[in-house]
This record gives sequence, structure tokens and C-alpha cells, in this order.
Amino acid sequence: MSQSTARKPPASTNDRPEDRPHVLTLPLEEQQADREPHSYERWLIAKLMRMAGSPPLRFQLWNNEFIDPEEGHARFTLKLTDPKALFTLVTNPNLAFGDLYSAGRLQVDGDLSELMETLYRSIHNARQKWPKWLEALWRNHNPRSTGVSEARENIHHHYDLGNEFYRLWLDHAEMQYTCAYYETPDLTLEQAQLAKLEHVCRKLRLKPGMTVVEAGCGWGGLARYMARNYGVKVHSYNISKEQLTYAREEARRQQLDHLIEYVEDDYRNISGQYDAFVSIGMLEHVGKDNYLALSELISRSLKPDGLALLHSIGRNRPMLMNAWIEKRIFPGAYPPSISEFMGICEHSDFSVLDVENLRLHYAQTLTHWMERFRSNMDKVTEMYDGHFARAWEMYLAGSIAAFRAGSLQLFQVVFTHGGNNQLPQNRQDIYSSPAAPEA
Amino acid sequence: MSQSTARKPPASTNDRPEDRPHVLTLPLEEQQADREPHSYERWLIAKLMRMAGSPPLRFQLWNNEFIDPEEGHARFTLKLTDPKALFTLVTNPNLAFGDLYSAGRLQVDGDLSELMETLYRSIHNARQKWPKWLEALWRNHNPRSTGVSEARENIHHHYDLGNEFYRLWLDHAEMQYTCAYYETPDLTLEQAQLAKLEHVCRKLRLKPGMTVVEAGCGWGGLARYMARNYGVKVHSYNISKEQLTYAREEARRQQLDHLIEYVEDDYRNISGQYDAFVSIGMLEHVGKDNYLALSELISRSLKPDGLALLHSIGRNRPMLMNAWIEKRIFPGAYPPSISEFMGICEHSDFSVLDVENLRLHYAQTLTHWMERFRSNMDKVTEMYDGHFARAWEMYLAGSIAAFRAGSLQLFQVVFTHGGNNQLPQNRQDIYSSPAAPEA
Repeated sequence: MSQSTARKPPASTNDRPEDRPHVLTLPLEEQQADREPHSYERWLIAKLMRMAGSPPLRFQLWNNEFIDPEEGHARFTLKLTDPKALFTLVTNPNLAFGDLYSAGRLQVDGDLSELMETLYRSIHNARQKWPKWLEALWRNHNPRSTGVSEARENIHHHYDLGNEFYRLWLDHAEMQYTCAYYETPDLTLEQAQLAKLEHVCRKLRLKPGMTVVEAGCGWGGLARYMARNYGVKVHSYNISKEQLTYAREEARRQQLDHLIEYVEDDYRNISGQYDAFVSIGMLEHVGKDNYLALSELISRSLKPDGLALLHSIGRNRPMLMNAWIEKRIFPGAYPPSISEFMGICEHSDFSVLDVENLRLHYAQTLTHWMERFRSNMDKVTEMYDGHFARAWEMYLAGSIAAFRAGSLQLFQVVFTHGGNNQLPQNRQDIYSSPAAPEA
Repeated sequence: MSQSTARKPPASTNDRPEDRPHVLTLPLEEQQADREPHSYERWLIAKLMRMAGSPPLRFQLWNNEFIDPEEGHARFTLKLTDPKALFTLVTNPNLAFGDLYSAGRLQVDGDLSELMETLYRSIHNARQKWPKWLEALWRNHNPRSTGVSEARENIHHHYDLGNEFYRLWLDHAEMQYTCAYYETPDLTLEQAQLAKLEHVCRKLRLKPGMTVVEAGCGWGGLARYMARNYGVKVHSYNISKEQLTYAREEARRQQLDHLIEYVEDDYRNISGQYDAFVSIGMLEHVGKDNYLALSELISRSLKPDGLALLHSIGRNRPMLMNAWIEKRIFPGAYPPSISEFMGICEHSDFSVLDVENLRLHYAQTLTHWMERFRSNMDKVTEMYDGHFARAWEMYLAGSIAAFRAGSLQLFQVVFTHGGNNQLPQNRQDIYSSPAAPEA
């Protein structure tokens, strides 16, 4: 078990005042929360609602006045605590919505993830009619760099928040911070996470004695599962110190350390040739600029008859990451569209064997995480502060919504060298018995 | 059963002398087959072999002299019957190899598909070192247009050769002229073709009473299978008259005509909205210029919770069709790369649910076709002529080779509207029981 303790989230790389979320908690004298709304402010809200496709919600202003353009059809109420919150929201809603919510200056009456799903669907349709200037004004920014040193900072920002923190709401089986596999809808989070690990092993057709290299291993659960259940040798790369400390101790505790080497290094420094290459939930952090290098890395790391599996959040079409998520939660994140994903395979003449989309499985995974997170809100507030707790609540709720609305996808892609004819006959073997353990 | 009889293959659209394959059967006096080879001709062959990556083959010239740059490692002998054959081969090997073979001016000692696979693999590696001028000289040409009227000619050229001809070597179950599904390696062609139809139906999660639209239906076997085994209503589009005649008669014979409407029309004229959209082996003929229109067509033809399946030959990376295949066998053909394929889905915000690559299944299908074709070579020669019979032998052998060497892939892609949340829980149901009927 890791001895690490929780800590404040590290500062972002580009530390301008507007990049610091806590600045958004305005001192009382600046809030002007005691004045009447101007008529142009009411007009702005009506305009904002129309641009968002007239979703079924109403606003409650700082003076408790309601603005309800949909006249009684509202299923949600958004309360703005001060006039500046409205201005921030209108000029950059993608970033401001999460920031204001975290700061407590935008409050939601109604289910947060349902509200977000409603907004995603409504905006998805409405934006096709946006004028160019609005498209430009509300555009998400490009993700920051994911070069070797920046990647270290990006990963530290999120994954080194403290193992104690993640233990509060991730599964207790193998600390999986990626999409689970709900083979049947009634699985527990623990069962579904173990089913995911099993599903991945089956897709890779692991056999005892094989060698596997893993790019980005989180708390090392997949490596341990593979070693324990398939008798393979695993090299797992990660640049998060917190996670590696946990991974190594857990491997020793399970007496698997002779089969697993957890390497504290960037995936770009992987060396050797393996029977399988696997990466679960790292591609989102790799960045488009590094796709071709990743492709070449996999090509030289995979034996001629080896299988590779990439598991990643993705998109139905190329699209920038939501500004707030990229800035506050996942610096540098960019989920590839399915054709960008396939471009990684094409670049090194790989042959794509199998693509599976587990989109709704991630919505369910996140729902399970959210339940546990919410029941620990007090602890999280104590460990960090209210702003942080609300930010993570928004991140989880928004992610549930994005997967449910189809704004995010979850792709598992299996591929091999173009000339490899040692292929599985078909996919029947993956489904020969349940992947999940009994409850 | 169709009353149609076999006929000569129709002339190609652009009917220049060099486009007419029969011109390649030179009159004797032009062959110069009685003269000694020049030393530059021997040099040309050595050069050609090096550029092709030094595959294990030797040449036998018109004077029976052997040229064997690999000195005794040859597994195949290519005999050239005249000096002009050599010149044609060197200047445009992609087109000339098939033409000369068909004309009997290039003869092969050794297994034809093994030779072709050896050449594909060897050239695939060697071409990375080709100088630019050679890349340009040996480049495959762009496929001809696949506009509405050209598509009619393209399809007529191949699919209207006569049902009698195809009956000689396709399966006797449902006349499937597309990749079969060898659930186990020992299936017969008939079993594997029925397994393919079943596999497709399962992937579409068909239920009685559903409506299906099919773009390009061949001899109508999938529509009959769906109607017979799943009780769905099918609209199937095709522009090959020969095939439709057979399809309709067979549906009447099986008393399925109340469930199936075979429509003689271009897929671009599909109207209505359906629970499922399916197309098996048509995308290869659609042409890149029409991908976005196809995407939009599927988008408007598919109900909000409908599933679509496209089954097509594809590539690991964008690449022009082999010149000879495009010119002599499949006018207008272009198999999409996997990312081009995904681009069709991205364009209309579809969500890709499942991709399966059945590459080696097509090699096995073609091997079964080849066995039957070869045992009917005499009949084919009688129906058409020796040139035609050898051309088809080369086409089948080259296709086996291309799938075995990884130069061609076979993708089955299932997708749905981006906002559809009525998704199958996973793919387990596809594998719940054998797809193939018992022998």
C-alpha cells in the first residue's frame, strides 16, 4: 500500500491568473450580487438559451428572479450567484460552466449528469446553425503539448493526486481508472473491472510464457491480472510515481514481482520485442502530434506474429477536447476520432483485426464511480476543499453525460503486423465463458 | 432459375486498342520468337528481379534459355514466349502480368497463387527502396468513374457474364460472390457461405417484422436468408439484370416473394427508412468520390435506433487497385483503407460499434472457388475462350495471393447513429451458437 497522502492539485504549467481555478471564487465586494439585473442581461440569457438549442432549463439570477424562456418546461434550474458569472458564462461557456460550478457561483437544481446530457444533445444539434463568429468565440482551445517533459507534468497533475483519493471511489479489486466491461448490466464495479481485464487478455490471446509490454499502467492492475491468470511476463511503463509505488508494493504482496517489471519511464523509451503490446487509457494523453511515433514504436516493439491492443476514449469525428476538461482535469488530453485512431494503425502497415466500442459501458462505470465519489464528498472536501470536490463532481457528471450523449466513445482496437498470418480463426474464443468472476 | 446464357465479356468503356485484351494475342509473324535474346534483355530481367526484391523465380526466354539471377533458389519458372512480352512486362508489370498470362505469352511453372503471394510480399518490401521514377512508371492508374451511368457499365462488365458461368464455381447454397465465414477451418464452401449470412444477420440483431434495405444484392441470397430465417421484410437494390432475374425467380420458388422486393435501381435511389441497412461487397465498387454521398444516404435511410453493416474488401493503407484488376476484371474498383472506411462513418456522425477483419477467410473462400473453377476450365474455355479462362484463373489466383500476403483485407463494420443508445450490451449474442449449419 502506498504511504502517500493527499495533496493540493499541482499548479498548471501555464500559470496565468485566469488559469488558476481558485481565482474564480470572487471576494464578496466584487460580486455585485445585491444589484438588480440589467435588461441586457436578461436578453443575454435568452440569446444563450437559443444558441444552446433551447434546452428545458431556466435561470435563477442573483436577486432570485427567474428567467424561463421555455415557459414552464424547465427540468433544471441554473442559479447564477453574481452578474460576473453570467458574463463569464456567455463569453466562454465551455470553460466557464465547470469553473463557475466548482466555485459555487453556478448552482444546479436537478440531476447534474442528466442536465449535462441534455445540454450535450441540445448543443450538438444547435451548433450546426451557429454563425461563424459564435463557433469561433465558443471554440475549445488546442490541447497543450505532450512532449516528454510536458507529459510528465500533465500526468502528475491528474494521476498524482494521491492514491488515497482514488481509493475512495475506484473499484477495490484492481484500482482500474478506465472503462469497465459490463458483460451483463447487473455486474458490480469490481466484477466489471475484472471482466474488462479478462476481456483484454482474451483479445490478446495470451498464453503462459509470453511477454507483454504495457504503455501506461495506472496502478498496475492489468499487469498483475495477466501475470496471475495467464502466467505471462509483463513490462509496464508509467510516469506517475504515486501509481508506481502502489503497483510495485501490490505486486510484491501478491508474489508476482518475478513476472512483472514496473518501469518508471515514458512510453517512448520502451525497448525490446514482445508477443503483445497493450495500452489501456493512455492514447487519450498521447496527443495527435505523437501518433505516428507511437505507431512506429509499436511496430518495432511487436514480434512478427504479436497482437497489439489499444483501449482509448475516442470520438465519432475529430473534435477538440472540452476546454474545461483539458484545462482543469486532463492537461493535454485529446481523444482521437475513429479514423485518426485507424491512421495510427495505417502508418506502420498494421492490419486492424477487431474494433469494439464500449461507449455505454463507460457511462455505467462512471455512474458507479460517481455514486462512491458522492458518498465521499465530505472526505474529499476535507482532503482538498469544496472547490476541488465540486470540480470532480462536475468532471464525473459531465463524463457520464458525454458518453450517454454520444459525444465520447470508448474504442478497443486489436491489430497486428500486416504480413502476419498467425491470426485467430474468429472471435468465438473470446466469448466461450463468462469474463466476469462470480460475485 | 435464370434462362440467360453465357456471353462474351462486354467491351470496356474506353475502347482504345491497348484496352482490348485480345489484341495481346500477337499474330505469329510479330512475335519474333525465333530470334536470340539481346544482352540488354538479359540485363533488363536481372534489373526487374532486383526491383521486385529478388523473389525466388527464374525466367525462361523464347529460345528456352534460362535466366536465373537467384542461382538455383528458384521455386517458380516464368516463361516468356516472345521478346515483346518482356518489353511490355518491364514497362507496366501491374497491367502486363495478367494480360500476358491471359494471352498465353507468360506461362508459369509452379503454383500460380503461391507465385503471386511470393511476388506480393517481395514487392511490398522492395518498393520502399524504389526510386521516384520507378514508382511513377509502375504506378497503378486511378480507377474509372463510378457515376450512375458508368456504374451501370462497370457492373454489367463483371456481374452480367452469365449466371451459368458463376454457377460453375460459386457455392450451391445461395450463390454468394463475397467472402465466406469459416467459423471452423474445415467447413465446406456451402456451410461457410451460410455461416456468413447468419453472422451478418446476428450482427444486425434482426427480429421478426423488422425492415431491411440492402445496397447491392448479388443473386439475392442474403435477402432470402433474412426473410426465411428472421421473418424480416427486405428491399434489395441491384443494377445487374442477370442477377436480379435469378434472385426474383429463386424468391418465388422459395415462396418468399411477399417479404422481398428486389429493386432494379442504383443504390443511390434508395428511399424510405429501415431498421437495418446492409451492403455486402458493394463498397469496393462505390468509388472514393461517392463515399460522402453514400454516408448521407445511409444516414437518411436508417431509423434512429437502426444498425448498419458494410462488408467490403479493404486495405491497411490507401492504395490504388492493381491496374490489371481494375482494367480487365472490376472496372472502377477501389477498396478503401480502414481510415477511409471510417471516414464514411464519421461524415454523418455515425458511431462505429464493431469492426471485424476476415482477411484469411477470403483467401480460403477463393481457394474453394479456385478448385471448382479449375475443374471447369474446359467448360469456361468452351463458353468463352482460353484467354478469358486464363484471365479468370489469374484473377482468382492473384486474389488468393493478395489476401494471404495482406495486400487486401476484408472488413465487416457495424455502426449506428451517434445519438442511438439502444445498443447491444456486447457481442456475446453473436457467438451463442454455431453460425454454420451442420454438413
